[in-house]
Amino acid sequence: MARPYHGIMPISSGILENPKSDRIRHVAELASRHARRKIGRFLVEGPQAVREAVRFMPGSVHDLYVSAALFDKRDSAASVIAYAADRAGIYVHACTGAVMERISPDCQGIAAVMDCDAVDLKTTAAIDRAIAASAPGTSSDGTSAPDASPDGASSQTRKAGRPVPLIAACWQVRDPGNAGTIIRAADAAGCAGVLLVDDCVDVTNPKVVRATAGSLFHLPVARLDVDGFFGWAANRGVHVTAADVYGTARRRPIPLPDMLEGRGDAPAEALARPHVILFGNEARGLEEGTVDRCDDVVTIPIYGQAESLNVATSAAVLLYAFALRARR
Amino acid sequence: MARPYHGIMPISSGILENPKSDRIRHVAELASRHARRKIGRFLVEGPQAVREAVRFMPGSVHDLYVSAALFDKRDSAASVIAYAADRAGIYVHACTGAVMERISPDCQGIAAVMDCDAVDLKTTAAIDRAIAASAPGTSSDGTSAPDASPDGASSQTRKAGRPVPLIAACWQVRDPGNAGTIIRAADAAGCAGVLLVDDCVDVTNPKVVRATAGSLFHLPVARLDVDGFFGWAANRGVHVTAADVYGTARRRPIPLPDMLEGRGDAPAEALARPHVILFGNEARGLEEGTVDRCDDVVTIPIYGQAESLNVATSAAVLLYAFALRARR
Repeated sequence: MARPYHGIMPISSGILENPKSDRIRHVAELASRHARRKIGRFLVEGPQAVREAVRFMPGSVHDLYVSAALFDKRDSAASVIAYAADRAGIYVHACTGAVMERISPDCQGIAAVMDCDAVDLKTTAAIDRAIAASAPGTSSDGTSAPDASPDGASSQTRKAGRPVPLIAACWQVRDPGNAGTIIRAADAAGCAGVLLVDDCVDVTNPKVVRATAGSLFHLPVARLDVDGFFGWAANRGVHVTAADVYGTARRRPIPLPDMLEGRGDAPAEALARPHVILFGNEARGLEEGTVDRCDDVVTIPIYGQAESLNVATSAAVLLYAFALRARR
Repeated sequence: MARPYHGIMPISSGILENPKSDRIRHVAELASRHARRKIGRFLVEGPQAVREAVRFMPGSVHDLYVSAALFDKRDSAASVIAYAADRAGIYVHACTGAVMERISPDCQGIAAVMDCDAVDLKTTAAIDRAIAASAPGTSSDGTSAPDASPDGASSQTRKAGRPVPLIAACWQVRDPGNAGTIIRAADAAGCAGVLLVDDCVDVTNPKVVRATAGSLFHLPVARLDVDGFFGWAANRGVHVTAADVYGTARRRPIPLPDMLEGRGDAPAEALARPHVILFGNEARGLEEGTVDRCDDVVTIPIYGQAESLNVATSAAVLLYAFALRARR
């Protein structure tokens, strides 16, 4: 690790010094959604996020930009990540402070450019594989044994001690901080993936990426429209629970404690089948018609005087409540 | 409700029109901590927070400023709140849009000026009363019966079905959004109060007030130094659990599921006595010496690849896990 970086990096032109160069301008432009859509790439900022991107999705990282000053400190976080990226075949560019500042004032000396397609999935295939991997009679690498399918019938007989797959879904969640925090909480709670239903915030938005604290690279995050979402759940035997305070005339809200203990109106199969929890828009919650299409509605009891919890806090509380219950 | 407001408001000078007047300048200055400290008052912004302040602490609200345009709409949220404030004897000022904008660009047409002392408590008396109120042999108005004291011995015999009091505590939590979100989650989870230990963010900071979504006016929030905190817990028989990923050599972290089920190293009295959960600084967590002074350490299991949860999310998950457990 004491070698000078000039010798080992696939970088011939030395340190990038011109913050006004076309290359750096194009990287900085990835802050705008328009540029991300046009180019199909996005920016990952800061040591934690870049480290996880390099670790979990090295094949989708194109370029890594690192402050030359940090890179020279062999044991700095940025330097360790840059060496790992180099070993993974990622093109590493040492840059002046002015160039890093131009790339992003928030990047703490390290940033990476990645393919949007790696994190903004258009199909649920990766989530379906994760569900299948936890089905009974499945080998440890996640491939289904011939007699096991990820549908409801087989998962009814899921092995004792193996938690049922849990998935988080957001409907029209627009705030980047909320979406990122939900993805991070879903990751921590061991969810098989996150579904973004019907026009949620763009997950390649820098604020979303930052709020996920690396979790965006840990679990599949896929986009679906409303019909696609309910069709997906029906086809795969996934139980759909709406997280909603009010419910509807057809779907009365079931308090979380009843849901966890299988009391009252709580359906026993919610705890036995793969389970998706659908969270609504931060201001408007879920639409009645959407709630009616869910299998049931769960509500977090408010024991004090608070009117409600915000959607990210609700998601963390509910996902962990179900994750802990599945492992009890 | 169809009367013109000029007749019923204790306001003689009509609509406040001058955004540069001394009065309005002084109100706007409450955005700075220096001014809040000097004057001892702070600003409450937006319909939700102002409504809760008027409802729960009318005696501590000095002045209410409302957009004349909103006030004229009899059924607007702002108008309903302004009438309630007027009935509570609060001085209500109708203002032009320019004046409201000068008071705060974030206030959505309504703001109030309140005493800092009402929400930034220097003693734990209000929390102690709430703990005492839930002790056995207590009348419903919260006064202790002569044979009941809020100490550990008596609360060991707490009545079945009555949840043990839960308190949230923050050590050096500096981010206003985190502190506000923790206060809101503590309120929702039915906590008896929140303790801010050793130089946390000022709760009268506008960002904290906003993030609490009114909860700042629902439950007592008191400041203590570290010795004061541990002394308070010891004197009142309150069990102290640190929320910490690592623990120390003396205090190994107990996974949340073990804590909830009383398994492994989990002390049974944690679930039987009044219980405070201590959360650490957002970047550095808790100091070893502080963890060692706690009775035990709880850690949230991470089932996925996430490195951690942020402090506000952790607080919501833990407070709700204990609140649900206490009511199971």
